[in-house]
Amino acid sequence: MRIALDAMGGDFAPRALVAGAMEAAQKFPDVEVFLVGDRESIAASMEDFGGTTKKDQNSIKIVHATQSISMDEIPLVALKTKPDSSLLKAVEMVAEGRADAVVSAGNTGAMVAACTFKLRTLKGVKRAGIAANLPTKNGYCTLIDVGANVHCKPIHLYQYGIMAAIYNIAVLNKKRPVVGLLNVGEEQTKGNVLVRKTMALLADSNLDYTGSVEGNHIFDGKCDVVVCEGFAGNVILKAAEGLSESLLGSLQTNLQRDLWSRLGF
Amino acid sequence: MRIALDAMGGDFAPRALVAGAMEAAQKFPDVEVFLVGDRESIAASMEDFGGTTKKDQNSIKIVHATQSISMDEIPLVALKTKPDSSLLKAVEMVAEGRADAVVSAGNTGAMVAACTFKLRTLKGVKRAGIAANLPTKNGYCTLIDVGANVHCKPIHLYQYGIMAAIYNIAVLNKKRPVVGLLNVGEEQTKGNVLVRKTMALLADSNLDYTGSVEGNHIFDGKCDVVVCEGFAGNVILKAAEGLSESLLGSLQTNLQRDLWSRLGF
Repeated sequence: MRIALDAMGGDFAPRALVAGAMEAAQKFPDVEVFLVGDRESIAASMEDFGGTTKKDQNSIKIVHATQSISMDEIPLVALKTKPDSSLLKAVEMVAEGRADAVVSAGNTGAMVAACTFKLRTLKGVKRAGIAANLPTKNGYCTLIDVGANVHCKPIHLYQYGIMAAIYNIAVLNKKRPVVGLLNVGEEQTKGNVLVRKTMALLADSNLDYTGSVEGNHIFDGKCDVVVCEGFAGNVILKAAEGLSESLLGSLQTNLQRDLWSRLGF
Repeated sequence: MRIALDAMGGDFAPRALVAGAMEAAQKFPDVEVFLVGDRESIAASMEDFGGTTKKDQNSIKIVHATQSISMDEIPLVALKTKPDSSLLKAVEMVAEGRADAVVSAGNTGAMVAACTFKLRTLKGVKRAGIAANLPTKNGYCTLIDVGANVHCKPIHLYQYGIMAAIYNIAVLNKKRPVVGLLNVGEEQTKGNVLVRKTMALLADSNLDYTGSVEGNHIFDGKCDVVVCEGFAGNVILKAAEGLSESLLGSLQTNLQRDLWSRLGF
């Protein structure tokens, strides 16, 4: 599989991306990575990580791009003014059949827009959504959307539900994924206008729709898919990251304190 | 302090509320609790928990209410059709000066509406917000709003920031609370229309405003106050509860497994 990687996108680029690509090349012999971005700084990073073996040179290739899009740029403006950006060039490699998949840790909005313009959505699909698989007691819950669109219509949330259910069947091997709609209560009367209008669409679908679910149901294994607007999904994803770090960090501190006290300090 | 408690609101009512009131009466001699709700079932719950001592009888009193509002009722309809509900009567006790504070674990929307009608907001405050103090590495972060209003205007979020900052100064003894605006990125260009319009108001205020913050900053101690619309705040609060349970539960399971394996199973 040929993967186009935006080597200039995200925190600690290109170093972190180069390190990841080199690790992947070692681990997965069938993977070919195109590091798209500034040739010189990518090559320098590769040297920093011990340089490439002959094997690496077959599986990792640099594709030069003179521009890069930063996190604070307005997506559509960036794509227009930076036609030679690493992000756009990586997406174009898939559009042109030179790569099978594209990965970017960079500007989310620019990535969604570039993919929408260059790769298009499947027929009938109105909006791309970003799905994140969050760990539950008994597997994973696909939370969609975690940040592609901060303003949605009911039809968009409805289609997120369908796409994520198909993804759960086709990729995660689930038979009949249970789909929930993120809400501020499980009762029919709860929710904002968007959510209340989406309820009717999901209830009328062929999905195994379980109705409105609250934030805790993302993690308790009740649903395979939880559908929400990008703003809510994104802040939950980040909050979950922060809370895990904070919880595990303080547990570690408590364990250390416990250890110190046992040692007589 | 005299506290009016809606004894019929929330999960496991009135048993859980009665148990809590009895525990509070034991612990805090200066607290007087009015259990507002169905006299018979409250009295039965009190008997179940071992009955009341003379001391309890002074500090816990039943105020009879013939109706109760359930979680799935539409707030305004419920308040209109149930004038003798425990929730409304408890709020009225504060309005009439017969109690100093009111607590309900019941229908959030009905509680917010009842308080707004009967107690009014402070002069100039347009909307009530629900604040939740979430634990961080170095104290607490006040997340506001966690569910009072699912449709807000910028002025509402702005006022949440001011109210929560004053609460942090007056109640949590912080000198100059740092206020953040919940967003899907820290850059100025990020966010939905509501958030982008709120930025300008907060930046122009006298608050110690740190700009947009992401979900993880609720837990990392960066902010004393994080402002958001009720939908986002509520799903984050519930997700945080669910994730903590799930994380701590699986840690427990791992520790048990570790213990079993040490014991040779």
